[in-house]
Amino acid sequence: MILEKINSNKDVKALREDEIDLLAEEIRQLLLETVSQNGGHLAANLCVVELTIALHRVFDTPNDNIIFDVGHQSYVHKILTDRRERFDTLRKLGGISGFPSIKESEHDAFGAGHSSTSISAAAGIAAANMLSGSESYTVAVVGDGAFTGGMIYEALNNCAEAERLIIVLNDNDMSISANVGGMSKYFSKVRSSVKYFRFKNGTKRFFEHIPLLGKSLIKGARAVKNSFKRVAMSQNFFEQFGLNYYGPVNGNDEKHIERLLKEAKDDKRSCVVHICTKKGMGYKPAEERPDLFHGVSGFDINSGKIKESGKISFSEQFGNIICRRAENDGRICAITAAMPDGTGLSEFAKKYPERFFDVGIAEQHALTFACGLAKKGMVPVFAVYSTFMQRAFDQMIHDAALQGLHIIVMLDRAGLVANDGPTHHGIFDAAFISQIPNVLFYSPNSFESLEECFDKALRADCPVVIRYPKGNEILCDGFEKGEEIDIFDCGSNPESAIITYSRLTENCKNAAEICQKAGVAARVISIKRLSPLPTEEIIAALQGVKNILFAEEGIKNGGIAQRLCAELFDKGELCGRSYKIRAIDAIFPPSATNAELYSLLALSDADIAKAIIEGDGNEA
Amino acid sequence: MILEKINSNKDVKALREDEIDLLAEEIRQLLLETVSQNGGHLAANLCVVELTIALHRVFDTPNDNIIFDVGHQSYVHKILTDRRERFDTLRKLGGISGFPSIKESEHDAFGAGHSSTSISAAAGIAAANMLSGSESYTVAVVGDGAFTGGMIYEALNNCAEAERLIIVLNDNDMSISANVGGMSKYFSKVRSSVKYFRFKNGTKRFFEHIPLLGKSLIKGARAVKNSFKRVAMSQNFFEQFGLNYYGPVNGNDEKHIERLLKEAKDDKRSCVVHICTKKGMGYKPAEERPDLFHGVSGFDINSGKIKESGKISFSEQFGNIICRRAENDGRICAITAAMPDGTGLSEFAKKYPERFFDVGIAEQHALTFACGLAKKGMVPVFAVYSTFMQRAFDQMIHDAALQGLHIIVMLDRAGLVANDGPTHHGIFDAAFISQIPNVLFYSPNSFESLEECFDKALRADCPVVIRYPKGNEILCDGFEKGEEIDIFDCGSNPESAIITYSRLTENCKNAAEICQKAGVAARVISIKRLSPLPTEEIIAALQGVKNILFAEEGIKNGGIAQRLCAELFDKGELCGRSYKIRAIDAIFPPSATNAELYSLLALSDADIAKAIIEGDGNEA
Repeated sequence: MILEKINSNKDVKALREDEIDLLAEEIRQLLLETVSQNGGHLAANLCVVELTIALHRVFDTPNDNIIFDVGHQSYVHKILTDRRERFDTLRKLGGISGFPSIKESEHDAFGAGHSSTSISAAAGIAAANMLSGSESYTVAVVGDGAFTGGMIYEALNNCAEAERLIIVLNDNDMSISANVGGMSKYFSKVRSSVKYFRFKNGTKRFFEHIPLLGKSLIKGARAVKNSFKRVAMSQNFFEQFGLNYYGPVNGNDEKHIERLLKEAKDDKRSCVVHICTKKGMGYKPAEERPDLFHGVSGFDINSGKIKESGKISFSEQFGNIICRRAENDGRICAITAAMPDGTGLSEFAKKYPERFFDVGIAEQHALTFACGLAKKGMVPVFAVYSTFMQRAFDQMIHDAALQGLHIIVMLDRAGLVANDGPTHHGIFDAAFISQIPNVLFYSPNSFESLEECFDKALRADCPVVIRYPKGNEILCDGFEKGEEIDIFDCGSNPESAIITYSRLTENCKNAAEICQKAGVAARVISIKRLSPLPTEEIIAALQGVKNILFAEEGIKNGGIAQRLCAELFDKGELCGRSYKIRAIDAIFPPSATNAELYSLLALSDADIAKAIIEGDGNEA
Repeated sequence: MILEKINSNKDVKALREDEIDLLAEEIRQLLLETVSQNGGHLAANLCVVELTIALHRVFDTPNDNIIFDVGHQSYVHKILTDRRERFDTLRKLGGISGFPSIKESEHDAFGAGHSSTSISAAAGIAAANMLSGSESYTVAVVGDGAFTGGMIYEALNNCAEAERLIIVLNDNDMSISANVGGMSKYFSKVRSSVKYFRFKNGTKRFFEHIPLLGKSLIKGARAVKNSFKRVAMSQNFFEQFGLNYYGPVNGNDEKHIERLLKEAKDDKRSCVVHICTKKGMGYKPAEERPDLFHGVSGFDINSGKIKESGKISFSEQFGNIICRRAENDGRICAITAAMPDGTGLSEFAKKYPERFFDVGIAEQHALTFACGLAKKGMVPVFAVYSTFMQRAFDQMIHDAALQGLHIIVMLDRAGLVANDGPTHHGIFDAAFISQIPNVLFYSPNSFESLEECFDKALRADCPVVIRYPKGNEILCDGFEKGEEIDIFDCGSNPESAIITYSRLTENCKNAAEICQKAGVAARVISIKRLSPLPTEEIIAALQGVKNILFAEEGIKNGGIAQRLCAELFDKGELCGRSYKIRAIDAIFPPSATNAELYSLLALSDADIAKAIIEGDGNEA
């Protein structure tokens, strides 16, 4: 095996040309074996095998820096640098991350997880290199999908002066779902001009092989080519930003890419290298359905059959609800930031295409666009992952809340998201949404309450946010349902209460049952509206309770538990009571299964029960 | 006077051509009179007088919608619609806002205050119109400076399918300070092709005056012009986004703009109308120094002399400190998002141009760019207004905190910002920054502590945020200085404590003095580090104290006061004590002087004193 000889990126450089194809094949096999077991991103990694080999043949990490946008396509890079032998620990607790991580390896120049940050980071690194006189190269590898995110343009606007900054545009004509909008059309146009590129490179090689002519003529020839380029690609987008442009070239042909990267390296100014790749390359099921094989939880290599839980998820349930409501309510529109499948909106998109808007990886725009729709009487529903909503924080304040516009934000993946890891955990939303005035903020604890909250949201006259976790329904039967809180008693006249919301309701219910077995009666209070907090209802539910534990699957500082503590104290309700908070205390939880994370954070059934049973009084 | 006859936008349409110039002149006079007294945005409004007249002659608000990006250039629009008679209340409490406001008038289609949101809002409104079958027009008026903000591109990417959406690009070649980056160069190139436009319009008029030829030939002529346009403006940026393009034209010539707007209106598809204007037009001092007359607190019309406090501001003091430190520390870089003057970085920019980066109105990029610099050992200092930092919330979490990179964010205008109003108050940062793990968060209460905090920040090994208010030094002499908190006693053995931070330290000190006169001894505790909160130091300072009042010039929910309450309670420190919170409780404070706002929010010296003297026990 060639791969076994690759113990560092230096070994990649030493390969003979004929060994490269073999290496690519072996890498693809390793990717398939690992991702089929551990889950993760497949299609995007299969398509950058040749690119990553070429990058490591032309550049020297960690001296040169390669930054992967979003970062889900960095597996090959990890294999080729220093993590081949540990690659089977991908995405596992204590294993290697599914995204680049500066703490994991010096070869990972900059971490990622969210889209469209790479050129900004690269511009910063390149600027630092210029200031320190370093001649290192900085390479940002960016998919075309990232070009629907505004940050990319902010960065492009600031690249013209940089040196030794190379942006590799990996154009696979599909980000997570199909790209949308004007830029996508632009890239399609460019792809059709591949013939031009062949001519261009041919010219250069031709001149280079006439020894006497030397560099000066190449310069002249380049001038000719440039004027030709102006005609052939007269609408070159990147040159307007002051960036030289190379390409496009077949991005699954290692020799082609290597040649183009060397040309860009010689240029020394900042430039764009445009390559065209095929998502899922080399694995038929992924080539045919790259959307399915974007992020998977596991699959059978031979059949290509993806592991599924068989149970319906919160995302799907939301998708069903919005489709039903949209049938009789023509005001309802749905918006996604490039995640129609992930957020459960595929069916809506089919049924109501004219009311469905996929705006690209553009959360900021999505939010304000929704506000525009709302201003004219529509009821826009923006479904977005909690972690990505962080991008639209300002718009939520400035456009939605301040103007009191009736938009609905469905916060999917709120709470821990297991093996996607620290960049993806939705642990901040409870804090950052509840601080915004004029916002109704719900956290349903079941499919039934998801529907109730959505109906309340439809009837509201202000911005509404509804948060729910990744995965299947929460198991919390037996609760006494209230308007804004649900109550579950385990044992009679409980003196202990566990207050919680969302998915943790299940853990808390289980904890209460453990407590009961240990002879301690406990009441679980599951809050369904986080802002305004239904403090009076909670106070009523605390009658007879002496010890309160608030268990929160979210960040502690600024979270709901702290706020409730202050509100209860202010009303004199903590007199003679203890109030403990179990939440995520100023850390970024790692990649792991949810069960592992709950144990780590002391939020498992047993941990919560233990806290109730053992107590540790802090009553006033 | 013509202006007195303009009681609604309908009257603008009825004007004879010769009356328009007169009207423009009268509007400019009114702008000068009002802004010289009330303060506000001058240069941007002077330059859109003709544009705004033309808009109201071609379109019908509120049926058609005009959206002003940033919104500081909406004064003329307000005068011409329904607010001329109240224009003297501009920016005053209860008066008309310095920005568009949907609550103020049906003619204000969408509020603003932050940059680059208008096309997103317009796209939403246009989409709603298409869905409802309305034939109304939606016009977004955007300055070229806003094109350094990424949201614009996210929106452009989603405009191609829209109908009756017109983007007026107001190209005055300078946003708040001089524009930066690639797009600016692009616009400069376009401006130089003004001659082409004259030819183009001439052609059309020529054909239109041959009655027999009719529309079909115009179509043919347009095709010819289009092909000419492709040559003359071969790098047209907007057409790559699928938008028709008209212009550029002299934007201070009402007739020219009116003709172009009518052409765009007839088009019915989404398009860009490019006009070139002069900032400060018609008022020499503002034409010569548009940066000085961007936002002013007041000035003398005749001399053009701007009112200044004469005292040094926190921004200036920071500017002095960073210049001094940068002299001996080559790692220090400074970054601004188009605010070198506002953030006090002008001097740094002059002294250390190679280490100074003005990235445009691009807070997201600025943050991640800083992280790139930090990754390579530089110490980037990003100075930004608190309210605009909301745009970089995700990057602060995802790029800075998660990776633990040593960047310094200087949060200027933290707290209330008086007459700039609700879009500009920096009342959320204490809550949203303190929830992020791994961040050191300082809130100095004096120039001296600003310098101390900055030095601590330089020595840190993680992201650091330092917040300080708009305006001059806080008056808080006599405090006993501690490491993370300062203490001021008024009277001996105080049983009451007022805890606070930042500028409110002054109010609290004054309140304590009022209390003393009323026979109540009080201790003021001013916190200089908000995260991690110096809880042990605070506990020590609370010795002997029975009644605690936390006065916070920030949002209550998720704020520092609630957090301290939870931490003190958890440690058993609220036993036998009362703890009251005085903060901004789920509202957006209006435009007003700071004194008025403090009264409104019950944060004035007298209000705080009253709360201490009268108490209202909530002790546990």
